[in-house]
Amino acid sequence: MFTTAKVASLFACLLFALAPLPADEVPQYTASGELKFPGQYREWVYLTSGFDMSYSVSMKMNNAHRFDNVFVNPEAYKSFVKTGTWPDHTMLVLEVRDAQGKGSINQTGNYQGERVAVEVHVKDEARFPGNWAFFGFEPGETAARTAKMKPPSADCYSCHAAHAAVDTTFVQFYPTLLPIATAKGTLAASYLQEMAAPK
Amino acid sequence: MFTTAKVASLFACLLFALAPLPADEVPQYTASGELKFPGQYREWVYLTSGFDMSYSVSMKMNNAHRFDNVFVNPEAYKSFVKTGTWPDHTMLVLEVRDAQGKGSINQTGNYQGERVAVEVHVKDEARFPGNWAFFGFEPGETAARTAKMKPPSADCYSCHAAHAAVDTTFVQFYPTLLPIATAKGTLAASYLQEMAAPK
Repeated sequence: MFTTAKVASLFACLLFALAPLPADEVPQYTASGELKFPGQYREWVYLTSGFDMSYSVSMKMNNAHRFDNVFVNPEAYKSFVKTGTWPDHTMLVLEVRDAQGKGSINQTGNYQGERVAVEVHVKDEARFPGNWAFFGFEPGETAARTAKMKPPSADCYSCHAAHAAVDTTFVQFYPTLLPIATAKGTLAASYLQEMAAPK
Repeated sequence: MFTTAKVASLFACLLFALAPLPADEVPQYTASGELKFPGQYREWVYLTSGFDMSYSVSMKMNNAHRFDNVFVNPEAYKSFVKTGTWPDHTMLVLEVRDAQGKGSINQTGNYQGERVAVEVHVKDEARFPGNWAFFGFEPGETAARTAKMKPPSADCYSCHAAHAAVDTTFVQFYPTLLPIATAKGTLAASYLQEMAAPK
């Protein structure tokens, strides 16, 4: 009833089904603690894009425009949909691309061109004192394949802690996730206070 | 050596591994030929976003801004990466969202708000005379769950046929796919001529 070949194929299948997540989908580090570039992030789950977004009114773009696209590793996404917050080993990737204007048949508005930077926000509770850390990869298509952690004194940490909607992440800008966090009651108290304050 | 439980679990695993694609990842139609809404498209592969893009110089946006996000079913994406063109049963989803300006800590530029429309471009060689068809779903979060095919006389067909980079699709605006199509030699002759023409 079970030939050797059939048994072998069933075992191969079982191994496949039980295989751990692709290495790429959990944070990987060098011996010195640099984050390895998550090379498959474009196949992860997309969360949103911004256009020329800035948290400073004084930012001058001149005529250069920028898109930023946000992706998350699929396991973290699935967990967020169930719970309204991020599990350990979440990786949020912010990809910055320059914006093209007129080109091909496009006459007005902007479409996406070259990648100019990649930043990754990583949750790794055993590794980072505040659970999360930021890593910035070099600009361009020839990005460095590893990046140093930004020091905890960098502005990104204090800004995310003060203003982010969920667990130091800007879920307020992720239109499909904000309703989930709202329904699950996982919005940060600091965010709710900020939203309720008179403008 | 093989208990009943073990054999059952191996079979369950085999069935899982051999299961067809999720129904959502191939086009599904009603008896009358309407396309069913591909409800999981936000978990598909993201291709790009545009901001206020228009193929007409006379388009007036007033103060309303729009993002459009493009997604493709994962099997079609994998095939494109290998071949530089789209397989049968490709579904490209164009999601239109309104653009928010100042909000939360964002001071300038735009982030994504409510979904206002969804259009789907479907390749189904056995069903459509030109291989591809367009379907438009009603605007809003309460989108209709089925949509009629746009008639072949609609402008979208002739415009895509005349100007698209690959197989009537606007790969020229998908920054990670255009280099693949270029390398694989799958760019349409009409697109190459248009790009080579004096401006």
